[in-house]
Amino acid sequence: MTETVNVIGAGLVGCLTAIALAKRNFEVVLFDYRLDPRLKSTNDRNLRSINLAISARGITSLQYVDEQISQKVLKDMIPMWGRMIHDLAGNQESQNYGLFGECINSIDRSVLNNSLLDELDGFSNISVKFGHKLSRIQFSSAKQNCIFNTDAQDQVSFEADFVVGCDGAYSTTRSQMQREVRMDYSQEYIDCCYIELYIPPAEAHNAEFGGPFQISPNHLHIWPRHNYMLIALSNGDGSFTSTFFGPWSLVESLDSRDKIQTFLTDNFPDALKLMGPDTAIEAFERNPRGALMCVECNPYHLEQGRAIILGDAAHSMVPFYGQGMNCGFEDVKVLMQLLDKHEGDRSAAFDEYSLKRHKDLVSIIKLAKDNYKEMSHGVTSRLYLIRKKLDTLLGRWLRDKWIPLYTMVSFKADIPYHQAIIKEQRQKKILTYIQQVIFAALTVGGIYSFTALRRTLKNYRR
Amino acid sequence: MTETVNVIGAGLVGCLTAIALAKRNFEVVLFDYRLDPRLKSTNDRNLRSINLAISARGITSLQYVDEQISQKVLKDMIPMWGRMIHDLAGNQESQNYGLFGECINSIDRSVLNNSLLDELDGFSNISVKFGHKLSRIQFSSAKQNCIFNTDAQDQVSFEADFVVGCDGAYSTTRSQMQREVRMDYSQEYIDCCYIELYIPPAEAHNAEFGGPFQISPNHLHIWPRHNYMLIALSNGDGSFTSTFFGPWSLVESLDSRDKIQTFLTDNFPDALKLMGPDTAIEAFERNPRGALMCVECNPYHLEQGRAIILGDAAHSMVPFYGQGMNCGFEDVKVLMQLLDKHEGDRSAAFDEYSLKRHKDLVSIIKLAKDNYKEMSHGVTSRLYLIRKKLDTLLGRWLRDKWIPLYTMVSFKADIPYHQAIIKEQRQKKILTYIQQVIFAALTVGGIYSFTALRRTLKNYRR
Repeated sequence: MTETVNVIGAGLVGCLTAIALAKRNFEVVLFDYRLDPRLKSTNDRNLRSINLAISARGITSLQYVDEQISQKVLKDMIPMWGRMIHDLAGNQESQNYGLFGECINSIDRSVLNNSLLDELDGFSNISVKFGHKLSRIQFSSAKQNCIFNTDAQDQVSFEADFVVGCDGAYSTTRSQMQREVRMDYSQEYIDCCYIELYIPPAEAHNAEFGGPFQISPNHLHIWPRHNYMLIALSNGDGSFTSTFFGPWSLVESLDSRDKIQTFLTDNFPDALKLMGPDTAIEAFERNPRGALMCVECNPYHLEQGRAIILGDAAHSMVPFYGQGMNCGFEDVKVLMQLLDKHEGDRSAAFDEYSLKRHKDLVSIIKLAKDNYKEMSHGVTSRLYLIRKKLDTLLGRWLRDKWIPLYTMVSFKADIPYHQAIIKEQRQKKILTYIQQVIFAALTVGGIYSFTALRRTLKNYRR
Repeated sequence: MTETVNVIGAGLVGCLTAIALAKRNFEVVLFDYRLDPRLKSTNDRNLRSINLAISARGITSLQYVDEQISQKVLKDMIPMWGRMIHDLAGNQESQNYGLFGECINSIDRSVLNNSLLDELDGFSNISVKFGHKLSRIQFSSAKQNCIFNTDAQDQVSFEADFVVGCDGAYSTTRSQMQREVRMDYSQEYIDCCYIELYIPPAEAHNAEFGGPFQISPNHLHIWPRHNYMLIALSNGDGSFTSTFFGPWSLVESLDSRDKIQTFLTDNFPDALKLMGPDTAIEAFERNPRGALMCVECNPYHLEQGRAIILGDAAHSMVPFYGQGMNCGFEDVKVLMQLLDKHEGDRSAAFDEYSLKRHKDLVSIIKLAKDNYKEMSHGVTSRLYLIRKKLDTLLGRWLRDKWIPLYTMVSFKADIPYHQAIIKEQRQKKILTYIQQVIFAALTVGGIYSFTALRRTLKNYRR
């Protein structure tokens, strides 16, 4: 008999989950509280997106689920080979991400989401219900009954053998599961507000950039200013989605157009020119302020294979490592591998998922939080740059033996997040040791040189 | 104009809050989802109580709110001067709590709750609505609209200037506030299940104990068995409320009456006799299993003085320091002091409450968690007992300068929890140092004695 599943949330992770389960012959119903986003006017931007950077974990997970679909939905992504650091004087400095030309890729969230939704139509065993907001779930050992409020203002219920919650940081699936299982849970807001801004396309084709781009489309642009920063990721049409990140107190203190203008002019003069000063100042004043929250929980499932949560519902993280979606896609891959391993024994697969996945999710949540510092001011410090050069050098020399953390996280999908951290800690110790040796050598050399110089001078004076 | 307040939850903290606010001339409406507990038959025990130990912080907070009410509601409490440790052989050993005869006090939760409810009747500006389950709150800068489902199956709403949530660990007030404020929040289950048991009164008056008690009513009885334990607190009628604490896996493994019988007979033979073996085994099998959860959050209030949470809603802790209710009562005192200090400026008072109270609440939550180890096996270890003796000795010698942690937490209401921890850490270092000095002295002394002995023996042999 075919098993049935309700997947809650038709975002990126929900869509991929639906496809992966449909390919394993489950009867899938996918629900979302929004209306079909493909029917909306494309001008209806939600202004809270933060563009996506898809890298190895996301791509290999898509490929694992379906090679062909992966090719189709990723065709518009734009490779970003490195960061482009913009200093206050307007200078740009490129810092490569990979040691051997690896890149991360800019992709518009809604474009990717819509492509994935289009792919669902190819499956006869997936049906999609938009405008269905999950209200509660009645769990039982046999069937899980999901009750929804529809946009037609009535209540409907759908039974399934199990539920997969991909309904984001404020997941209702999760809160319903918490009534059934002793789930450890934490949410923590970091003191950082974000505001979406916009850099329009260039007026003409730019030969250097291969399109109507004002700045390089193949970099993730950063204007680091210590405790705040601006970033920009390219879109296919020549525009850039830009995001300002800064402490809430700072943003709240900029409470007039004049103050905003002064702030942006003083700190981001070149970016302001790219955006168009008036538009940028108005956008900064009017656009919604977003909060950044980390969510951790454990376990991720209910016993007897009744329910499981994936993606942001299980591990909302701050966007500073560009791993949120990549990690969510990897969740799907890991779960499918376990379902295959346990030959469809959901109960065993879900148990093992929670047991194994937790340390990886905790690791990437922490890495993402720590990376804010690196992005907003680490990237400009002298010591950071020296260490980074050394790290890169060793990575090139000792290929596969010495792998910089960023490479492990972004380009090595075969290294689980928690192992990346363990390996990095070992490398960090060695780096510090090398630095000390070099420093000692320089000091000894310096003393020696100084003594030699003094002797020479003495001889000279004689 | 009189300001109005909705207090959610007519448990211990909710009742005290209502009284404290009524005395400050607020118009108070107190809501509870349960029916009036005083109308229930006294046989309707909920079997999930864990008896209360009220100590200095709880008592002084009650006195601070109302001296007379405090005397009335505390009249039935039974002093407990120390722990009574029951070993496997049935030996009992008393360990005093205080250095100078201080005690904590056993009190039945429902007796105390009912007495406090009775006191509310004396206030014309308090009205109590039972059978009102909070469903949601519409917050605004002017009025807060609380919507309740009543036991008559309809919805009613009550507006007030502000809301105080005293609705326990699974607080709806808190979850409604989380929609308005970026609240850090965490809940963590500890791997410990509890089961309520019962020791009946003695058949006759026991002259030694001044009543029909089978064991001393003036001790908190503990049967420590390393990773599990049994405790018992006296009730006024000669009975004891006993609670078993142990890991979930252990409790789940005791899945037949035979296994329970063997387990209890092997580990708690004397307690089993006190309870009556058949009753105890049946109770162990049938009574509900309780989970223990820690809740932390921050901030505790909404801006503009719109809402605040007190008691378990703000800081659910495990029961191993006997501080849950004491801390909740102290919340009320601290908040009232701030309202007085800010002369009724709720906004300022609530802001300062969150700012100041957080470190104390975090401290006691941690202390309570750590004390499980001390109660369940620390109390029987040799090293622990030596250190404890030293700690007690120093506390007696250096009165007011050296205060053991337990004394600070349980008997010194003027020392905030977080300062108790700081002071304890300082004392701990000194204790360790003294231990090392003594050990060194003993070693040197030992070598000296050994050498002297050898010399004597040699002389003797000559």
